Amino acid sequence: MLPWSADLAGRIEEHVISSELLRGNPLGDPHDRPVLVYLPPGYDEEPDRGYPSVYVIQGYTGHVAMWRNRPEFRQPFPERADKMFASPGGPPPAVVVYADAWTAYGGSQFVDSPGTGRYHSYLCNEVVPWVDARFRTLPDAAHRAIMGKSSGGFGAMITPMLRPDLFGALATHAGDALYEYCYITEFPAAVRHLRKYDGDIWRWWSDFRGREPFTREEDIHLIMLLGVSACFSARDDGTVDLPFDPATGELRPAVWQRWLDWDPVRMVPDHADALRGLRGIWIDAGVRDEYYLDVGAQAFRSALSEAGVADELIHFELFEAGHMGIDYRYPMSLAWLCGRIAPGTELVAGSGIAKYGLRHRGAVSGSGTFPAYQ
Amino acid sequence: MLPWSADLAGRIEEHVISSELLRGNPLGDPHDRPVLVYLPPGYDEEPDRGYPSVYVIQGYTGHVAMWRNRPEFRQPFPERADKMFASPGGPPPAVVVYADAWTAYGGSQFVDSPGTGRYHSYLCNEVVPWVDARFRTLPDAAHRAIMGKSSGGFGAMITPMLRPDLFGALATHAGDALYEYCYITEFPAAVRHLRKYDGDIWRWWSDFRGREPFTREEDIHLIMLLGVSACFSARDDGTVDLPFDPATGELRPAVWQRWLDWDPVRMVPDHADALRGLRGIWIDAGVRDEYYLDVGAQAFRSALSEAGVADELIHFELFEAGHMGIDYRYPMSLAWLCGRIAPGTELVAGSGIAKYGLRHRGAVSGSGTFPAYQ
Amino acid sequence: MLPWSADLAGRIEEHVISSELLRGNPLGDPHDRPVLVYLPPGYDEEPDRGYPSVYVIQGYTGHVAMWRNRPEFRQPFPERADKMFASPGGPPPAVVVYADAWTAYGGSQFVDSPGTGRYHSYLCNEVVPWVDARFRTLPDAAHRAIMGKSSGGFGAMITPMLRPDLFGALATHAGDALYEYCYITEFPAAVRHLRKYDGDIWRWWSDFRGREPFTREEDIHLIMLLGVSACFSARDDGTVDLPFDPATGELRPAVWQRWLDWDPVRMVPDHADALRGLRGIWIDAGVRDEYYLDVGAQAFRSALSEAGVADELIHFELFEAGHMGIDYRYPMSLAWLCGRIAPGTELVAGSGIAKYGLRHRGAVSGSGTFPAYQ
Amino acid sequence: MLPWSADLAGRIEEHVISSELLRGNPLGDPHDRPVLVYLPPGYDEEPDRGYPSVYVIQGYTGHVAMWRNRPEFRQPFPERADKMFASPGGPPPAVVVYADAWTAYGGSQFVDSPGTGRYHSYLCNEVVPWVDARFRTLPDAAHRAIMGKSSGGFGAMITPMLRPDLFGALATHAGDALYEYCYITEFPAAVRHLRKYDGDIWRWWSDFRGREPFTREEDIHLIMLLGVSACFSARDDGTVDLPFDPATGELRPAVWQRWLDWDPVRMVPDHADALRGLRGIWIDAGVRDEYYLDVGAQAFRSALSEAGVADELIHFELFEAGHMGIDYRYPMSLAWLCGRIAPGTELVAGSGIAKYGLRHRGAVSGSGTFPAYQ
Repeated sequence: MLPWSADLAGRIEEHVISSELLRGNPLGDPHDRPVLVYLPPGYDEEPDRGYPSVYVIQGYTGHVAMWRNRPEFRQPFPERADKMFASPGGPPPAVVVYADAWTAYGGSQFVDSPGTGRYHSYLCNEVVPWVDARFRTLPDAAHRAIMGKSSGGFGAMITPMLRPDLFGALATHAGDALYEYCYITEFPAAVRHLRKYDGDIWRWWSDFRGREPFTREEDIHLIMLLGVSACFSARDDGTVDLPFDPATGELRPAVWQRWLDWDPVRMVPDHADALRGLRGIWIDAGVRDEYYLDVGAQAFRSALSEAGVADELIHFELFEAGHMGIDYRYPMSLAWLCGRIAPGTELVAGSGIAKYGLRHRGAVSGSGTFPAYQ
Repeated sequence: MLPWSADLAGRIEEHVISSELLRGNPLGDPHDRPVLVYLPPGYDEEPDRGYPSVYVIQGYTGHVAMWRNRPEFRQPFPERADKMFASPGGPPPAVVVYADAWTAYGGSQFVDSPGTGRYHSYLCNEVVPWVDARFRTLPDAAHRAIMGKSSGGFGAMITPMLRPDLFGALATHAGDALYEYCYITEFPAAVRHLRKYDGDIWRWWSDFRGREPFTREEDIHLIMLLGVSACFSARDDGTVDLPFDPATGELRPAVWQRWLDWDPVRMVPDHADALRGLRGIWIDAGVRDEYYLDVGAQAFRSALSEAGVADELIHFELFEAGHMGIDYRYPMSLAWLCGRIAPGTELVAGSGIAKYGLRHRGAVSGSGTFPAYQ
Repeated sequence: MLPWSADLAGRIEEHVISSELLRGNPLGDPHDRPVLVYLPPGYDEEPDRGYPSVYVIQGYTGHVAMWRNRPEFRQPFPERADKMFASPGGPPPAVVVYADAWTAYGGSQFVDSPGTGRYHSYLCNEVVPWVDARFRTLPDAAHRAIMGKSSGGFGAMITPMLRPDLFGALATHAGDALYEYCYITEFPAAVRHLRKYDGDIWRWWSDFRGREPFTREEDIHLIMLLGVSACFSARDDGTVDLPFDPATGELRPAVWQRWLDWDPVRMVPDHADALRGLRGIWIDAGVRDEYYLDVGAQAFRSALSEAGVADELIHFELFEAGHMGIDYRYPMSLAWLCGRIAPGTELVAGSGIAKYGLRHRGAVSGSGTFPAYQ
Repeated sequence: MLPWSADLAGRIEEHVISSELLRGNPLGDPHDRPVLVYLPPGYDEEPDRGYPSVYVIQGYTGHVAMWRNRPEFRQPFPERADKMFASPGGPPPAVVVYADAWTAYGGSQFVDSPGTGRYHSYLCNEVVPWVDARFRTLPDAAHRAIMGKSSGGFGAMITPMLRPDLFGALATHAGDALYEYCYITEFPAAVRHLRKYDGDIWRWWSDFRGREPFTREEDIHLIMLLGVSACFSARDDGTVDLPFDPATGELRPAVWQRWLDWDPVRMVPDHADALRGLRGIWIDAGVRDEYYLDVGAQAFRSALSEAGVADELIHFELFEAGHMGIDYRYPMSLAWLCGRIAPGTELVAGSGIAKYGLRHRGAVSGSGTFPAYQ
């Protein structure tokens, strides 16, 4: 009963994957990882039917158990997605997989790194085959998508670039991009925060671990700095290099270049083939995003065009919002992705794709444009 | 396994109370209400033991299902409380009852109102007897406490004033108080927001109900204005009077006085006897509280002294924080309350109370002063 | 040569008035006070012509020498006013008098107070006769107006209420009004600031006087609190009472009532006759005013109507701006006032008043609606 | 009489220099430029004495007439400087020259550019010789210093690097440095603002010129972007290149490199000889500077050490403040510079320099450490 709970038309299974790839990871994080698998209405009634699958990943500090969190005046996304699938005229059904890549630093950016662990490989080489082996998915890229917000949007952008054999569509909500804006703007504040710790982020880390977290202004800033550095600029032995000199604030060009090598905007040219082969790319962000990820979205959108990705593959939308509280957007992109990766869908004009097709491309739209079945 | 979940040493039972008092409430909200009852470690092993009980209520927009929400880098309060009870040297065990008074407006301030429903009576006359009938509580005020934050802190202040026969101790974290600051400062902003709706809050309400909530800046402000007006200044027929004229912003003195009649600071003199008879009053707030509830806490503290409440009954503390993210404080007050209402505790110097006694009275302390067993 | 300087078509005379009323004022402020008198183009060429006069007063911390300050990318108001008078189609010429009521606390609210001095009387009984004796003004209320911003807007509202025999028109830009919003919202922040000074504003004052002013966050807040208290709630012996108890934040009703007695919105009913007899009342404010003086403007506007002031006497306008940087509005109100108090102007429909008449009454207009001769 | 005015012990002469170098400048700005020359007490009484000179330049949007602006509760810097020179134990006297490089864009960064004009050359090749020809200065670099704030601090850093033959000491207050922080953090906001103007800054410029300036949020941001681009990245024909693509936000590396070539931190290595030869370098900034110029100050300080500039030549100080309201710092650096460039001063230990020597080097100090003669 709302607001406390809702019955699902489909169902969610909770599983734990014991990851070989994460065993012995540098941070000592658990290698037994929870995964939620949502099976849409009808899954049990149609035992011969195969389903497309959508992988949903989260932003920094997120983990799968948080999908059960009940926001104020809203339902959790899995419930909204279920309601959408159960509605007449809803999108084609899909298996929805909620996996995370949480670490002691709050995240892993869904990459392999000697600083955190092999989370990209865990997702691609362990979770995906595990799901395909246990559920009636359509086990090919054309019917598999990935979506996420913030760091999860970043993961959703880069994973299909790196593994087009696995993922055929993506949706990024306020995904990390154009690092000169989303990251550099954080650095000088971090320089100031580190003054209190003699410029030594490990002194902060030690302090942070020994007290109540997030009770100091610097906590959220420094955990992200440390965590992202561990993901993007750890050395082979696991040593973490910050992208700037804490004593002066000056960028360290070689380290910073390692970050830039992970900027989705800058990665596009080298992965143009992969991107051109996708069946759908959803990009959105709020025009007041505190990390300027609306500008990053614009740049990513533009880089796709320059790489020859066809306009009809792309949904692009900026909307009135900041970085937070935009979970109500996820059902929109999920519905759109399902339309794109449903079996029998042909990427030709006039096909069933149109139904979930490109609204407001390139436009700033209001927040009220979500599907009626939401 | 953390961060995803934690095993409890005690256990939580989920129940639904079918309230007679809420049946047919004016907003059409459910009268079947969920309640969580936490039973501490040892409860089942000691079938003859009676336990004190602590009622935990929430702030505006909160409901009991949110106690399962997992915050970033933190455990939910019920898990932290359990860990505390299970720790060597932890506080005396208690039954902890999580009840809510949620409405379509996001809350009810835990009062009876023709604008929302009889939530005060529901809590006192239905939940408390229901708990006492089903669990081995010590069913008297000396062994029953109530605590909460924000609007829940308000509820924790006023409920024992109104029902000292039921509640013998309280803890308020950033509880609503000194309404000229926590509320008046909100009104002129509301006047501005209402310009968009021709000064008619029902036009906003209609709009709010028909779209995604909390996507507009005004939403959180206007829902609180409407909701609190419905609680404090509804007429007998349920008509809601705003405390100011939306066309001019001017206070409506008679309506505003109805709000002031519910200001805990102003209620103290009329309930001095009740307050002097309590076994413990915990008051805290963050010094950067966006609603100035630290100032409200000061004023409430001062009003208690003027009403003759003994210093040794009071724990007062201001700490470095804003209004949000202070859930880590709840285990501190819970432990303190348990010490206060444990059976056999005498309110004399040198008693067992001292153990959970008055730290930092009147002082602004740092955020790191939480109990070691946390 | 702009931006450094501008030649005037008229001229500005600098004088010093030796005030008897301010001699021996409680703060030891100078009783010799500078006054600037602007004489419009043609003043010297038409030695028999009499001119209406407009008195211009300033906001808190302002003094007449600041009228020479050159803002970024803008000209000082006296130069803009001069340019306007010199333009073809400009408003009827007027003598413009710049007087101040500066004190060691940064202002005096243009009232008589045992806490600061007799600044209201100084303005009305010394400056006005002094000007009329030395310049060819039309020395009656029908041809004399007063205007100002912020505290100066307050002064412009109350002075004609108190002395309708002297002032026949007024303009208030973001003038202090509806004290529950413009002042109460400041009090809880002041309570916090005063914690550093043991709740003793005189400790802050002593500190403030001994160091560089405005280098601490609290300075601007506490100087206004102290100064306005000295204006509104000083005892006969000059002792300053704050409107709240710094130890608890609680309002002191009797002291606060003394403030409310000076709220222009609340003063209107007692001065309805005076207000109905004015020839023009200009009211404006920015919709983002940090002190909510747009709401105060609405309330003052509404109170005028309730007091029977005719609509055609009023120009009311809210515009897109905050509290600062709105000096570009002054030429608009000055032109309008000049039209209202020009000799030969009859307050009948179709008269010459229409030219400077009521634009956008009651509407929120853009910032671009200033007169072409600006 | 304060606060309205102050008598000077020395005197200020106002002159206009008719610049040949600025004649026909691209923006059509005046080539007749005002200059203020302050002559210290005693200048007229000692007709044979030569004086060191200090050139004072301003931040963006500043021009020399603004030195007469009277700030709230403070005296204008020229008056404070005069008071300091007149005080017993004050610094060695100097001629203080106030020159500006104002343009229609609000400034010129004191560089030569085809986008704005030859302001660097104007200052060095016209103002300096003009001053030396008319006043009894000691006309060599050892006795000539330059100081400024913000863009003026930038000018004060680079001018002695480029012309060590002219300037022998400098003081920079919150001077532009470490462009990845002070500038890049502004770009994404500019991208957003430009959306309203179809990404065309000239559309904004046209709008800005046709209405009241600084009435829109974007004005201050876009004028700086346009102005600094005109200074740093104009082509030979005057065409202004923005350092990023307004359509996508992406940095334009070649244009951005032109900006970086003007970053004082990055300029140090190429001008190490010039810097090592200076007699004094004062660097300060507020720790809350909105443009992170405290971090820029750190980086500049560090670059000086790496370039071999001796510690005893440098005064470095971070203090509690933001970017604005720090004019009270100028007398401190002026006094220090005067000590450094006074005739007869030898740069050896124990010399007269010590008196105005290095306080708090490298330390964050409070705001109360200004000289007693201030």
